[in-house]
Amino acid sequence: MQENKLGFIGVGQLAQPMVKHLLDQGYEVLIHNRRQDPLEKLISKGAVYCQRPEDAVVEGGILFNCLPDDAALLSVFNAHGTIFSKLGDTGLHVSMATISPQASKIVHERHKTLGGNYCVATVMGRPDAVVKKMHFYITAGKSDQLDRVRPILQSISRGVFSLGEKPEIANAAKLSFNFLIASAIESMAEAFTFVRKHGVDVDQFYSMISETLLACPLYKNYGRAIIERQFYEPLFKMALGAKDMNLVSAAAKECQTPMRFASVLQDRFTASLAKGRDNYDWLGIALDVEEEAGIASERQG
Amino acid sequence: MQENKLGFIGVGQLAQPMVKHLLDQGYEVLIHNRRQDPLEKLISKGAVYCQRPEDAVVEGGILFNCLPDDAALLSVFNAHGTIFSKLGDTGLHVSMATISPQASKIVHERHKTLGGNYCVATVMGRPDAVVKKMHFYITAGKSDQLDRVRPILQSISRGVFSLGEKPEIANAAKLSFNFLIASAIESMAEAFTFVRKHGVDVDQFYSMISETLLACPLYKNYGRAIIERQFYEPLFKMALGAKDMNLVSAAAKECQTPMRFASVLQDRFTASLAKGRDNYDWLGIALDVEEEAGIASERQG
Amino acid sequence: MQENKLGFIGVGQLAQPMVKHLLDQGYEVLIHNRRQDPLEKLISKGAVYCQRPEDAVVEGGILFNCLPDDAALLSVFNAHGTIFSKLGDTGLHVSMATISPQASKIVHERHKTLGGNYCVATVMGRPDAVVKKMHFYITAGKSDQLDRVRPILQSISRGVFSLGEKPEIANAAKLSFNFLIASAIESMAEAFTFVRKHGVDVDQFYSMISETLLACPLYKNYGRAIIERQFYEPLFKMALGAKDMNLVSAAAKECQTPMRFASVLQDRFTASLAKGRDNYDWLGIALDVEEEAGIASERQG
Amino acid sequence: MQENKLGFIGVGQLAQPMVKHLLDQGYEVLIHNRRQDPLEKLISKGAVYCQRPEDAVVEGGILFNCLPDDAALLSVFNAHGTIFSKLGDTGLHVSMATISPQASKIVHERHKTLGGNYCVATVMGRPDAVVKKMHFYITAGKSDQLDRVRPILQSISRGVFSLGEKPEIANAAKLSFNFLIASAIESMAEAFTFVRKHGVDVDQFYSMISETLLACPLYKNYGRAIIERQFYEPLFKMALGAKDMNLVSAAAKECQTPMRFASVLQDRFTASLAKGRDNYDWLGIALDVEEEAGIASERQG
Repeated sequence: MQENKLGFIGVGQLAQPMVKHLLDQGYEVLIHNRRQDPLEKLISKGAVYCQRPEDAVVEGGILFNCLPDDAALLSVFNAHGTIFSKLGDTGLHVSMATISPQASKIVHERHKTLGGNYCVATVMGRPDAVVKKMHFYITAGKSDQLDRVRPILQSISRGVFSLGEKPEIANAAKLSFNFLIASAIESMAEAFTFVRKHGVDVDQFYSMISETLLACPLYKNYGRAIIERQFYEPLFKMALGAKDMNLVSAAAKECQTPMRFASVLQDRFTASLAKGRDNYDWLGIALDVEEEAGIASERQG
Repeated sequence: MQENKLGFIGVGQLAQPMVKHLLDQGYEVLIHNRRQDPLEKLISKGAVYCQRPEDAVVEGGILFNCLPDDAALLSVFNAHGTIFSKLGDTGLHVSMATISPQASKIVHERHKTLGGNYCVATVMGRPDAVVKKMHFYITAGKSDQLDRVRPILQSISRGVFSLGEKPEIANAAKLSFNFLIASAIESMAEAFTFVRKHGVDVDQFYSMISETLLACPLYKNYGRAIIERQFYEPLFKMALGAKDMNLVSAAAKECQTPMRFASVLQDRFTASLAKGRDNYDWLGIALDVEEEAGIASERQG
Repeated sequence: MQENKLGFIGVGQLAQPMVKHLLDQGYEVLIHNRRQDPLEKLISKGAVYCQRPEDAVVEGGILFNCLPDDAALLSVFNAHGTIFSKLGDTGLHVSMATISPQASKIVHERHKTLGGNYCVATVMGRPDAVVKKMHFYITAGKSDQLDRVRPILQSISRGVFSLGEKPEIANAAKLSFNFLIASAIESMAEAFTFVRKHGVDVDQFYSMISETLLACPLYKNYGRAIIERQFYEPLFKMALGAKDMNLVSAAAKECQTPMRFASVLQDRFTASLAKGRDNYDWLGIALDVEEEAGIASERQG
Repeated sequence: MQENKLGFIGVGQLAQPMVKHLLDQGYEVLIHNRRQDPLEKLISKGAVYCQRPEDAVVEGGILFNCLPDDAALLSVFNAHGTIFSKLGDTGLHVSMATISPQASKIVHERHKTLGGNYCVATVMGRPDAVVKKMHFYITAGKSDQLDRVRPILQSISRGVFSLGEKPEIANAAKLSFNFLIASAIESMAEAFTFVRKHGVDVDQFYSMISETLLACPLYKNYGRAIIERQFYEPLFKMALGAKDMNLVSAAAKECQTPMRFASVLQDRFTASLAKGRDNYDWLGIALDVEEEAGIASERQG
């Protein structure tokens, strides 16, 4: 089947460059978003704006969602929706949202009963990476459905990983991945504060670790950003980081895995929100680490 | 000054390949170790065994130590020793031990009063890396002294980082580095258990992270080793890991930096020792993570 | 108004002795529970069993609920129910369930729109205390409504505390109270293991603390129970403890209060469930503390 | 043997009222302290000030110490001292210091070799309690030696607990006791902040808990003090609390007992020192709990 017409629901900061890439590839794209104004640029490039989610569904075609959270997903894909019947036997819903494995399972069950195939393709990478097609997808679902969407995903990213048949495992993998990133941020924040208090030049320490055992994008890029105090122009907002750590903690309880680092991170993000840092980059948890150490480091107005 | 005769005190698992490299470079090496028997191979290669620490000191020359802990260092370099006077004005003590910044400062003070210059060159790498000259040194001390020892260190390693004048900052940097490694182990152990409980193939998850954001030796090598359950043939023993985490915690209190991840690690290592895993690799903290999650995973006799 | 006929929905282990006391006081009591069989004794004493929740509502009268969790409450008091209209302008719903402040707020809102007054009376005490009328109630709600239910509550308990007008603050207070209990259990478990490892007789240590600074029912009764290893005949089940700690954590995030002890407890209860201890008493988290310390202490089959 | 002449080394805030009580009982007391000026009042009451520690030793008599920490104890009772020989076969050293079980063991060993019997009598109670003879002693040691000192201790306190033959177990018990107190402070601080954020009147919540399950001096007195913000006129200083939590953590590692609450407390006290609160009461950790929750609560100049 040739899929040259696609639907996309939930077109925020992360999805916008994806839609642009799809348009660039020649796809016709129906888009729906709660607020229309951030989409003007895409519309001017040819994307078709739809008032209601169900209008963005190509009958029997592929529908992407990049909705912000469990509640949004469960509300748009609620049991009374007509989305399911429009997707029907051949349609495919590809969920890119960072949500709980449980919410993903619920939507999957609805598809089984009400229509539409379902697979998951979570995103590894922040908006700036998506712009440059440097992000990856973590996918899971029936192999025939994955085969169908893979070429599309490959055309707009750096690569696609496939994890298995049950869609929700790609959600679990994504949460786990974000947990690893947040853990690296926290450990660098603690390590940097520790060496700084001992009189070590943090830049030199950073060079040392990022040129040897930790020579990878995570430590290089995030480490550099902590040192340069890039807390105020968020690439990934604190509020989203907090949401993801809460999803990790909830899923950890659900699958009965005590995760002590995740518990520390939970408290760290809660403190950061309590201190009014919702719109900082999630790297800003480093500020909380410093404050605990008696170093007042917030930038001056 | 040409230094073709060197002293080396504390020649354990990590120092043995260093001494071998020094012998290969043509240096004459006086070695002292509490137990002589592990040194037979080096002696047969030309190293000169000395019964007492002070006998391994080349007058006015360079003396390395790679002693196991604060207590050993403070005991060998005790204020009543003749080591200091033998080192005198021109001698240089290069300490490679993983010890507390505080113990390092104490020994430094003794040198100022009693003789011998002092700098620190801690080791980044485990014995297997040292064998292949793949390790690095983190050095600190007066620049003229560092200049003197750097060529020697470069000749037996992959590189030398210099952090500044105060020797003990290289001790702090080393502890911080080990803390980052232990944090990465814990976070991988938690993440792997989490995804495994969700039905994700851990091998695939590992590929995914180690080929993208975490494509660096630490995650690649340690991650692989956790998956292959290399807990029982230690490259770095649990007991040493526990010692280092205790040094981190103690130094963190000393410099008034609360390190919550370090506190979690402390409890994790204490539990691992309580469970009798002193001689496991420190990667074995992953077993404790799994046990907490109700997964009995210890290998069968 | 004379209230001699009362409704009661959710009549589990904790509510059964309450209903018995109400019958003893001469009240006529309509009861509903998902399963009827545990209620035979109450029915034989005169309680009237109702098949559907709405049948247990006395029109314009007082309705108690002691449902097990948020989901049960939100489902029974769902927006489509006729419970609200039966309560009408004068009816009063008194919620005794240990639930989240948020769920309490939602039900409160529904009452405002759909009928029935609402207040909260959470229970301080386990079933054995309720049997002996040794428990307390923590109440919140409009004062005229509280005045109406207070005499009833006083007649079947040791006392009633009132906290204010907003009903959900009694839910928050109850969670906080359970958090204090769980914290005391954890701290005793750690302290007892610590002194035991030092060769102190735990019984003597217990006497010492429970006769001086900690001479109160919590430390006396729970401390004694830990020492006597009363883990297997639950007065309060691990699964309920875990549920409550999850409610605490969720509410803590909701109100942006990092609670580090609660985070530790969360991991502790998750581990206890992962180890299959759902039906142990929640005191059984002490077993997890001991296992971490390398002391195998589970009773033999 | 009649002991009407006693020695006392380390006469700080806690020991001063003890010496006063001893003088009131008619004992002749030789006192030594590093600084003499705080002792003028006792001297005017008849206490005899001694310049050197050894001068405060009654030959073959009883010597108390209430030194501040391990270092002070090990230094005063160093192996080269003449204290041991002056105590001789019949003398008895009663150590009241809050120190590590390990330091206690070391001093015990020295006594065995060098002279003097040794037992431990740690203090439960702060200076204000000692003034009113409301404190308790936790003792351990050989029973004949305990029999000898017990009447003296009873005469100046509310009671004496005896734990066994090995002196250091009284040190472990004392640390464990302080850990229980600090845990109660932390849990109250978290609970109070949590309910306050939910709009509960903290005073009412306090009444509720301190009149029921937690009706004991610890929760009543410390709870009241937290609410009244008695952080600035210390009854027990933050710096001492931090020292004790460090002793607990170190002893916990030593005896291989992971204590997660103790680890949280360690970080809490480290943060409080980092924020410059050394001279606050240790209740002041509540300020750190509040700051994390985004509530700025430090009193204004």
